[in-house]
Amino acid sequence: MNIDEAVLAVDQMMLDVVHSEVTVLEEASRHIISAGGKRVRPRVLFNAYLAAGGKDLKAAIPVATAIELVHTATLVHDDINDHGVVRRGRVTINEKWGRTFALLTGDFLFTKVYELMAPYGDLNITFSEATTALVEGETLQAAAAKDNTLTREIYQKIVAKKTASLFRGAAMLGAQLAGADRRTIDTLGEYGFYLGLIFQIIDDLLDLTGDPRLMGKAAGVDIPQGKGVAAAIARKSANGKRDEALGVVTVEDDPFLPLKERLVAGGAVEEGRQMAQALAVQAHATLDRLPQSEAVDALRTLITQVMERDH
Amino acid sequence: MNIDEAVLAVDQMMLDVVHSEVTVLEEASRHIISAGGKRVRPRVLFNAYLAAGGKDLKAAIPVATAIELVHTATLVHDDINDHGVVRRGRVTINEKWGRTFALLTGDFLFTKVYELMAPYGDLNITFSEATTALVEGETLQAAAAKDNTLTREIYQKIVAKKTASLFRGAAMLGAQLAGADRRTIDTLGEYGFYLGLIFQIIDDLLDLTGDPRLMGKAAGVDIPQGKGVAAAIARKSANGKRDEALGVVTVEDDPFLPLKERLVAGGAVEEGRQMAQALAVQAHATLDRLPQSEAVDALRTLITQVMERDH
Repeated sequence: MNIDEAVLAVDQMMLDVVHSEVTVLEEASRHIISAGGKRVRPRVLFNAYLAAGGKDLKAAIPVATAIELVHTATLVHDDINDHGVVRRGRVTINEKWGRTFALLTGDFLFTKVYELMAPYGDLNITFSEATTALVEGETLQAAAAKDNTLTREIYQKIVAKKTASLFRGAAMLGAQLAGADRRTIDTLGEYGFYLGLIFQIIDDLLDLTGDPRLMGKAAGVDIPQGKGVAAAIARKSANGKRDEALGVVTVEDDPFLPLKERLVAGGAVEEGRQMAQALAVQAHATLDRLPQSEAVDALRTLITQVMERDH
Repeated sequence: MNIDEAVLAVDQMMLDVVHSEVTVLEEASRHIISAGGKRVRPRVLFNAYLAAGGKDLKAAIPVATAIELVHTATLVHDDINDHGVVRRGRVTINEKWGRTFALLTGDFLFTKVYELMAPYGDLNITFSEATTALVEGETLQAAAAKDNTLTREIYQKIVAKKTASLFRGAAMLGAQLAGADRRTIDTLGEYGFYLGLIFQIIDDLLDLTGDPRLMGKAAGVDIPQGKGVAAAIARKSANGKRDEALGVVTVEDDPFLPLKERLVAGGAVEEGRQMAQALAVQAHATLDRLPQSEAVDALRTLITQVMERDH
């Protein structure tokens, strides 16, 4: 079994595990699961498993499925909070079934994870830390958006918690499943953390520059909501001055010049890419501390893929 | 350590476990936890543990805490869906902090449970079945309310899933923690299931007849929402005819005669109590199959307490 096959097995296990006699829960769950997604967290887990000496990817499938299910649960709940209408090229659950059923579908996915993780003892500690951090990050993001207080510092903290922690958790769980020693687990966790930061920054930049047809969702929605890297550096982009107290550009500012153009012209995209580049260097340096192998090369390729993705 | 002390330890563990550097999550979690509640699910778990031969209640505290935390998470999310304003005598989280933070607080509690349940291997299977059924029951309830299709049959299915399954799970987990054999686990599970059915029916009747000051929440809110035992038998109460296709009384029907009086006059309360009485007989019969002990007597007392509670 190679990684692509293992990822397909994760898809299948997700579809199986959401079986329910309550039709709407099964349908809504399958609606978002079968819409696809990059499955980047399972890929990180599988690659880390191999890099840590794991031999049988099959053994890592249930935990990779659990990680992706929690991620999916939080997407479903995000779309409620953000009034999202399209996700992965499909209408969102809240749009199609209403807010109540969307909320319950997310909860359903959370409870299904208890079952998947049952055999894995202490791995549940890693899992819990990662998923709790995710929710904490989402909460910080909601608070910063509400109070209009998103600075670069707060942005970095949000991204660390809401995205990088789950990537770190995925990498650590892969290493733990492979029976790695503490040092290898932590090193791979560090790699996952940097990769997660990069992933989210690029994701935020794609909100600004991406092609909505490729993205499967509307673009340019984060900044007016006070979210994303561009929002964090928007003050600079808006007026060209660095080191000024940061704030959020709203769509109402200077409606004659489109927000996107203004941000691009102000250098927000360039600055975001520079952040991501610096983090990529650190991610590579982390991998230098591991015994080099094909699997470690694959983790390096993953950095490049995350940097270069266009959707 | 006796059961009251163990319940206090659950309260303390809940307060400890929701610690977070993200203030709003900790504050909102503590807001609902410290508002109290009957902690009836932990009590069921502890009593079942002793009835199954368990000796040290301390060993059962983390799992009891996990059960109560998931229950709490679903209350927080329920209040979003029902636009609840008061719960346990306090303003709800959605009312105080807004819907977004309430949703995230519920998710936070779900993820904290992964940590608590980490050491308990197969018990996570029981736990997952119970909590998934809970969410399924909530979903059936939302669907019946939306489509105005709540019949006695559907009502029973909803109550079985949304309440009785978690009571069954609590009793089974208590027995499993005590190292009981399969038969004892299942018998106690059956007891828990009946007790949960009774608990919910009485809860629904209290919505109709309870004193809001004692209840810590508004009364009479379920029926117009198409929820609760009274709603299921409301058609009969409204027009005095049995065996008619059942529906839901809305507040708009005959506004000159208060809903509550109409339902009471129609015999809804009496019929609900009869349902509960019949189930109490079955709960007692289940306990007859166990070796009698003080702990089994305590489980019998619990039936009486649940039947007679006034808030």
